[in-house]
Amino acid sequence: MSLIIIGTVAFDAIETPFGKTEKIVGGAATYASLAASYFYDKVKIVAVIGDDFQKSDIDTLSERGIDTEGLQIKAGEKSFFWSGKYHNDMNSRDTLVTELNVLADFDPVIPESYQDCEFLMLGNLTPVVQQTVISRLKKRPKLIVLDTMNFWMDIMMDDLLETIKMVDVLAINDTEARQLSGEYSLVKAAEKILTMGPKYLIIKKGEHGALLFHEDKIFSAPALPLAEVFDPTGAGDTFAGGFIGYMAKIGTVNFNNMKNAIIFGSALASFCVEKFGTEKILNLTEAEVAARVQEFVSLSSFTIEA
Amino acid sequence: MSLIIIGTVAFDAIETPFGKTEKIVGGAATYASLAASYFYDKVKIVAVIGDDFQKSDIDTLSERGIDTEGLQIKAGEKSFFWSGKYHNDMNSRDTLVTELNVLADFDPVIPESYQDCEFLMLGNLTPVVQQTVISRLKKRPKLIVLDTMNFWMDIMMDDLLETIKMVDVLAINDTEARQLSGEYSLVKAAEKILTMGPKYLIIKKGEHGALLFHEDKIFSAPALPLAEVFDPTGAGDTFAGGFIGYMAKIGTVNFNNMKNAIIFGSALASFCVEKFGTEKILNLTEAEVAARVQEFVSLSSFTIEA
Repeated sequence: MSLIIIGTVAFDAIETPFGKTEKIVGGAATYASLAASYFYDKVKIVAVIGDDFQKSDIDTLSERGIDTEGLQIKAGEKSFFWSGKYHNDMNSRDTLVTELNVLADFDPVIPESYQDCEFLMLGNLTPVVQQTVISRLKKRPKLIVLDTMNFWMDIMMDDLLETIKMVDVLAINDTEARQLSGEYSLVKAAEKILTMGPKYLIIKKGEHGALLFHEDKIFSAPALPLAEVFDPTGAGDTFAGGFIGYMAKIGTVNFNNMKNAIIFGSALASFCVEKFGTEKILNLTEAEVAARVQEFVSLSSFTIEA
Repeated sequence: MSLIIIGTVAFDAIETPFGKTEKIVGGAATYASLAASYFYDKVKIVAVIGDDFQKSDIDTLSERGIDTEGLQIKAGEKSFFWSGKYHNDMNSRDTLVTELNVLADFDPVIPESYQDCEFLMLGNLTPVVQQTVISRLKKRPKLIVLDTMNFWMDIMMDDLLETIKMVDVLAINDTEARQLSGEYSLVKAAEKILTMGPKYLIIKKGEHGALLFHEDKIFSAPALPLAEVFDPTGAGDTFAGGFIGYMAKIGTVNFNNMKNAIIFGSALASFCVEKFGTEKILNLTEAEVAARVQEFVSLSSFTIEA
């Protein structure tokens, strides 16, 4: 039994209205595996980096119990690098630099010790690489979650549709749900997307929370209203990692458990944005996470007699 | 004991991607009083119209038990008229025509029979007219709710700030909360606004639901995801009317009751947008309203053990 998370492990340089960073460790698999590690102790990553990573950066993952056997290190090559600048509203950003480097010809190798995988998180990457990971698992996992983005819809829609067919849960934002379905109403968008393969659809709405669609059921999760969003980088990956980490811990796939998984994922994401990069989600205590989850409970609970 | 609702009773001509109407009955007090009438049976309106209204239009209100003694009819004058066209996303609109007509010199007269008012809804109008209503009530109501809009912030901020000082609950949308406070974060905006007079702040976020702020507490209410929004006109007024109608029915002002009032208001608003104008909220059954409220319960409930 394990949870595999595939995605980028990379360097980011981030500028927000609150300040800017040099190259810091980022990437979808980094955020997602750190988040998942708060709920589940058999998190294994598949990713590729260059030899520009410090051993201490990789140790940061190992110290949280994350298995890095599937992390390829390419000698003489450089890691994926992204640099971006957020606007004042923190809801939009400009990409300043994208250097694919090792990601350009990433061939995801699944170590034999990973073949006990029951939960699979396909973090944002080329749809073809995501498919490759599924095909290299000898047994289909119990739950496959796919995170993707509008970029792949723009340039590789056919490949992406193939990947979407193969998964159980699709997690995208509201703009992407509209683009993928051609429907403005999120209810209609969800109806269409749920015919494309996934049995569950999560629509992430940032500061407005998230929606979970399954059959004719909908769950609306709030976002925690925050006085300050310091750096939104990685919040979506942290959400997805917390989501699947909680599902792996619970083990049973159903709508009710996914509702809770969304709350746990949202709680982790609400920590993520409080500091630059992964800083805040490196060292949370169990009590901090539990208290944050209870804030979500208070925030959205009300009692009306039927 | 009664609930007074002040606001416009007017004609609207509406164009949406789904069609257009001739002049139909609209106005903040119309929507709000109809919504409130589903929860409370002593709803009284204060408004002004010209003699261009049909008696049957006024009967529509009376048939729902709404007291129209405070509805002034100005002979030889025309009612307030607004015409607007919604864009394809239904979230933005252009105002095509605004004719103030009788509203230009509206002097709100409070009938003696209205002096038992315990709940007061100040629908969107000139801040000075809203103040006049408060000053003409011999006894301060138990709860005063103020609905306003960016228009008054643009041209009469000082008057508006005076009115805001006098009320218990302010209901505005997210853009307006940012404008009023000068803060982008809604948490910071709410902190500032709660020092301006109101003890409660409702921030309406349309398709993203609503937030209620009080002291250090926050409640996040979902919006019902809808397959089709046919006509958003009056949804905010319907929400406010349902909110205060429920509060008047319950009678006790506290945070928990207001959470439920927001759900009841949201439920009424979700009906409002399903047809043009007031059509859908003229003839709902108790069972329909109760079923819709239960949809909100299902939509947002989850169970996490502490």
